[in-house]
Amino acid sequence: MRAVVFNGPYDVSVETVDDPKIEAPSDAIIRITTANICGSDLHPYEGRAEMDAGMVIGHENMGIVEEVGPGVDRVKVGDRVSVPFNLACGTCRNCNDGYTSACLRANPSGMPGAGYGYPMMGPYWGGQAELLRVPWADFNLLTLPSGDEWERDFTMLSDIFPTGYHATELAQVTPGKSVVVFGAGPVGLMAAHSAAIRGASQIFVVDKEPDRLALAEQFGATAIDFSKTDVEEVVMDATDGMGADCGVEAVGYQAHDATGEEHPEMVLDNLVKVVRATGSLGVVGVYVPEDPGAATENAKEGRIAFNYGEAFTKGLSIAGGQCPVKKYNRYLRDLIIQGRATPSQIVSHELSLEEAPGAYKNFDSREDGWTKVLLHP
Amino acid sequence: MRAVVFNGPYDVSVETVDDPKIEAPSDAIIRITTANICGSDLHPYEGRAEMDAGMVIGHENMGIVEEVGPGVDRVKVGDRVSVPFNLACGTCRNCNDGYTSACLRANPSGMPGAGYGYPMMGPYWGGQAELLRVPWADFNLLTLPSGDEWERDFTMLSDIFPTGYHATELAQVTPGKSVVVFGAGPVGLMAAHSAAIRGASQIFVVDKEPDRLALAEQFGATAIDFSKTDVEEVVMDATDGMGADCGVEAVGYQAHDATGEEHPEMVLDNLVKVVRATGSLGVVGVYVPEDPGAATENAKEGRIAFNYGEAFTKGLSIAGGQCPVKKYNRYLRDLIIQGRATPSQIVSHELSLEEAPGAYKNFDSREDGWTKVLLHP
Amino acid sequence: MRAVVFNGPYDVSVETVDDPKIEAPSDAIIRITTANICGSDLHPYEGRAEMDAGMVIGHENMGIVEEVGPGVDRVKVGDRVSVPFNLACGTCRNCNDGYTSACLRANPSGMPGAGYGYPMMGPYWGGQAELLRVPWADFNLLTLPSGDEWERDFTMLSDIFPTGYHATELAQVTPGKSVVVFGAGPVGLMAAHSAAIRGASQIFVVDKEPDRLALAEQFGATAIDFSKTDVEEVVMDATDGMGADCGVEAVGYQAHDATGEEHPEMVLDNLVKVVRATGSLGVVGVYVPEDPGAATENAKEGRIAFNYGEAFTKGLSIAGGQCPVKKYNRYLRDLIIQGRATPSQIVSHELSLEEAPGAYKNFDSREDGWTKVLLHP
Amino acid sequence: MRAVVFNGPYDVSVETVDDPKIEAPSDAIIRITTANICGSDLHPYEGRAEMDAGMVIGHENMGIVEEVGPGVDRVKVGDRVSVPFNLACGTCRNCNDGYTSACLRANPSGMPGAGYGYPMMGPYWGGQAELLRVPWADFNLLTLPSGDEWERDFTMLSDIFPTGYHATELAQVTPGKSVVVFGAGPVGLMAAHSAAIRGASQIFVVDKEPDRLALAEQFGATAIDFSKTDVEEVVMDATDGMGADCGVEAVGYQAHDATGEEHPEMVLDNLVKVVRATGSLGVVGVYVPEDPGAATENAKEGRIAFNYGEAFTKGLSIAGGQCPVKKYNRYLRDLIIQGRATPSQIVSHELSLEEAPGAYKNFDSREDGWTKVLLHP
Repeated sequence: MRAVVFNGPYDVSVETVDDPKIEAPSDAIIRITTANICGSDLHPYEGRAEMDAGMVIGHENMGIVEEVGPGVDRVKVGDRVSVPFNLACGTCRNCNDGYTSACLRANPSGMPGAGYGYPMMGPYWGGQAELLRVPWADFNLLTLPSGDEWERDFTMLSDIFPTGYHATELAQVTPGKSVVVFGAGPVGLMAAHSAAIRGASQIFVVDKEPDRLALAEQFGATAIDFSKTDVEEVVMDATDGMGADCGVEAVGYQAHDATGEEHPEMVLDNLVKVVRATGSLGVVGVYVPEDPGAATENAKEGRIAFNYGEAFTKGLSIAGGQCPVKKYNRYLRDLIIQGRATPSQIVSHELSLEEAPGAYKNFDSREDGWTKVLLHP
Repeated sequence: MRAVVFNGPYDVSVETVDDPKIEAPSDAIIRITTANICGSDLHPYEGRAEMDAGMVIGHENMGIVEEVGPGVDRVKVGDRVSVPFNLACGTCRNCNDGYTSACLRANPSGMPGAGYGYPMMGPYWGGQAELLRVPWADFNLLTLPSGDEWERDFTMLSDIFPTGYHATELAQVTPGKSVVVFGAGPVGLMAAHSAAIRGASQIFVVDKEPDRLALAEQFGATAIDFSKTDVEEVVMDATDGMGADCGVEAVGYQAHDATGEEHPEMVLDNLVKVVRATGSLGVVGVYVPEDPGAATENAKEGRIAFNYGEAFTKGLSIAGGQCPVKKYNRYLRDLIIQGRATPSQIVSHELSLEEAPGAYKNFDSREDGWTKVLLHP
Repeated sequence: MRAVVFNGPYDVSVETVDDPKIEAPSDAIIRITTANICGSDLHPYEGRAEMDAGMVIGHENMGIVEEVGPGVDRVKVGDRVSVPFNLACGTCRNCNDGYTSACLRANPSGMPGAGYGYPMMGPYWGGQAELLRVPWADFNLLTLPSGDEWERDFTMLSDIFPTGYHATELAQVTPGKSVVVFGAGPVGLMAAHSAAIRGASQIFVVDKEPDRLALAEQFGATAIDFSKTDVEEVVMDATDGMGADCGVEAVGYQAHDATGEEHPEMVLDNLVKVVRATGSLGVVGVYVPEDPGAATENAKEGRIAFNYGEAFTKGLSIAGGQCPVKKYNRYLRDLIIQGRATPSQIVSHELSLEEAPGAYKNFDSREDGWTKVLLHP
Repeated sequence: MRAVVFNGPYDVSVETVDDPKIEAPSDAIIRITTANICGSDLHPYEGRAEMDAGMVIGHENMGIVEEVGPGVDRVKVGDRVSVPFNLACGTCRNCNDGYTSACLRANPSGMPGAGYGYPMMGPYWGGQAELLRVPWADFNLLTLPSGDEWERDFTMLSDIFPTGYHATELAQVTPGKSVVVFGAGPVGLMAAHSAAIRGASQIFVVDKEPDRLALAEQFGATAIDFSKTDVEEVVMDATDGMGADCGVEAVGYQAHDATGEEHPEMVLDNLVKVVRATGSLGVVGVYVPEDPGAATENAKEGRIAFNYGEAFTKGLSIAGGQCPVKKYNRYLRDLIIQGRATPSQIVSHELSLEEAPGAYKNFDSREDGWTKVLLHP
């Protein structure tokens, strides 16, 4: 089959590789119809997260079931499915508790949590390819209505729509509350969309890219360009000087100021400032335990020197981590089907698999308008 | 009346001062029967938190209603009452949401949250005195059975028992979960007691003072002396290598290692290590937005450089802040009355008001066995 | 002042009565700008609930603060306010827990819960009048932006918008779930509006009045005319044969079939049928402990012989009761201000106070198009 | 193998039947070490629930894994395991939501929920036998420490301990609340034990059998003999006239008064009376959609004519249904291991499999002291 292969930093190519096979009774093979490039694919692409050469990349996958193992009794050949980026066994203690993001058995390294085509997440090939092997298929796969309707929306169900939604769950967004989202990348935009679905009264989205801020407004949010405006002032003015009820971190450890300099504690600091006492933060922007490429000694060791003293004084809660996709995806699917969610609004490019290398290059250099790329093998 | 007056760092004395008066229709005057010295009274005592000279100190108060204003229609003269340390209006948005710890109206400074006899918490005199004025008395006062039964238990209802309990609520302790509590001071011990009441399966308490660790065992916990034992190893061995489900921080920003050196990030770092992926931390040890007396530049600005990168990777939630006492005190009172909670186990000294200055000195120097001091005016 | 006075069944008149006065320090007097007629006002109007002659009627009130007692320190003369229909003390155990609908002190009868101008809810006059006395004003009153903007929306905050919202809270509506609402009266319509705000994927509203069903569609629901259609079939077809996730009862004990015959168990029976196993019901349609006017012996004693055996087998939860308005009204106000909620869509008539008697007559006989009447004194 | 076979009403015998075999890749075969007789086994035994002759009975099972199918990758031969009475697929929507009690795929009849050796719960043989086939074994089986320690406690994990605990979860028991449990059979006693573990301040258990009431006291509850005492009076006196916060129904549709006459609505009526306004009921006593053997027309159709009017007026929530065992069993196991739960206190008899017929007879006639029977094949 054809697949996007990681060769090394800033080097991916489309190669012919062996087809995946059923390896265990619970496996299924999926024929990929859409696989997205994710912002976190850029971590290995840029060499910031170390990935083995030869790995097939891609964890945002959907398609049609091509073959199932003898232990698969729910999903059937021909089913249209979304593949959550967390690969989970369905029977360990964390899976029992709904934390498929911290499955205790799927990652041979012994670390909680596994995934497709990503460093540290196990040996599983990604889905930017014609075919994908999915272990524990009955547990992992979400079935979709057959046909090709809503393909551009459904493809967001494997990662970023649930991840944005998870941010609003962690931030405890409920009807009538106000929310500030830092970061108008795909995940931040999905958080804004989710906040509206959950009934937030006011949604602020902070970024500096005009095209992304325009999308935020399209989702019903108030856009704030932090390179031109005082974020704290805007939020305080709109909330009687109290601050927002909830905050979402959708940026991560590579946060940089308007000049491009990295400040890993910057976004958390800003959230602590603009969220009201008793408020809640949901963090889905990625922070890592070790970051040899970081600018400061603290950051190299995963230490983020934000003002926790103020966070404590304000009585904030800070919840974060990878999204357990299965907790949300069936509900978000139903919202798409009923026309109450349209995550496809952020799609900027639909390309063939062969065009992947160029797409990576443009997406990585944040070319204007390259918000979200879908690959159709 | 006689009252414990703060004169300056390491200098409190018992003085005769003016009796408090009814100042507003909702006020009550309480004749204090018991007022405790709290570990956080040592912050101003040591000059680490700046307090005005002349302030009457003390926020852990109980007594008998002596007089009520014309707007008081629930509480009656002669009622025995516990006074929550948070002084709250009962009608602002945060009080409506149950966050009496962040009352928006009681503190004239405009900061959320007010209290008695404490820096930054408003002009309200404390209760280490014969009499105490309580604003919004109907809202703030918890009524108790008349008489003097359970006095040593009920006196814990104004602060440390609810605070310890709040830690277990923030840490999401539910039946069958395991918990690690850092700090075996009064609040840590109350957290251990609360964890047992909430049905935790295993409770670990980490400290280095043998008398406090002995009390932890008395509450049904496993004591770990961090000066002699590897905490992580003990917890991992007892939890199949997974780590504890929940963690409680009951130490705060003045955390120091076995040699006495301060490391404000030490306890959070340890909690991130010993709590399992998907776990929850409850922080009631105090962190402050600014700490001019701190050892490092970061800490002076309230920045606590703990390994948030690892916390995120493990998907931990970190919730903290002052306890909203009213959320819990009536339930804890009922547990005391039914003999299912006995927080008085930590009382080490019962003294007269006149003995307060010596008590402060001994408590501050952590004299062996000075766990919890009650003053009876 | 002029006020709508209850003289006896089917007999209300507008009379000149004594102005209300400040009776306690916590009282406020409100100059009413809008008071609505509520469906439950028809219970005493029809003589089904016994009310003393001479009572001023009306529990859906808003206006401007005219005068405050000396114990009022939050609300100020001139403030525009909404008055929750539950009159609550703010300091009893139930108020502490947020159940202002079951205040233990406001109703002199000793029964939990008090209100304005309503049988069994205490001696408090209603607000279909020029002036209204509000006890514990700081606690009870919700402040609104000054001016007259959103008057027709804000007037729904005193009862039916929170009540409809409460139904969806009790029914555990969360994003992506499907909901069936029985009853397209004002409360059922507010439940449908609330379900949309909370992110429901599908909302079904069941009634037989075409004008009300049209309003349901306006709120984004699927209308089902039970006099013409098999409700169970429609819901099952739309939910893959599973039934809806959530059910709302917005009809109450006077439920009648298409022929007009009363069947007090009919709506609960239907909900048990159309809600899926593991689902949740929220009941805000009123049921009463005794109903001398009922058709059957069981119903006279408050016994509703619905199929609880099936409800248990399906593992349903059934939560019901009066709405604690203060739990929701501030959030719903903010949604109105931000344009994300428009409960005014159901207003059919705006009349002067003097027109009240005719309005009662038309509303009671369910004249076509008399959905919701606002009175402006 | 030898197994307890149902031949017809009041007729079970121990027979030699075919050994179960691995039928699907996810199956396991368990060698039973302990199987309990459950009160609900008496429903088919008495002919009240219709069961096919030849069925092997028994749904409270534990043992050692004897053999696993090729799709089983978590559980291993030799593992000691508890078998939840709900047999669930682990991958349908209800299983995803944690409702293994309403699995949509395990019961070939299409009804939600499946089990072992029980009418209407699918064709699966029970475990009062030497061997038991367990489908979807990785999902269903709870692993236990090897050896034979805690066997009498662990055997309660398959049904009644989680079921009693579930009742307290549905009844929203939290620390400091008071609880009334109706029924001191094994499930009621487990509910009382669970309420204590969850930190209830007061626990009342209502029954008329002295041996069972004595066990209730052993679990720390206050026993109330309803044949001699006015239950409402006792509860009201102990709760300042308010009623208990929570109520548990552990009796079911065959409730009878002190004279032995059946009144299916009696227990719900009593709960509505003794639970305070705003309280919560958890129902695990079984009610059925149809009961041809019932005394009244209503009851034959599953209609339970309790005073729902009063329940609504008091704002009660009523949640009920079969326990999803997997939601709780791992936590309860850990409490047993740590010595904080000892459900074995209710065991009255330990017998061999061959003694089952006599045990059924004695248990069914409620011979004094026959509280809980364990069978060891």
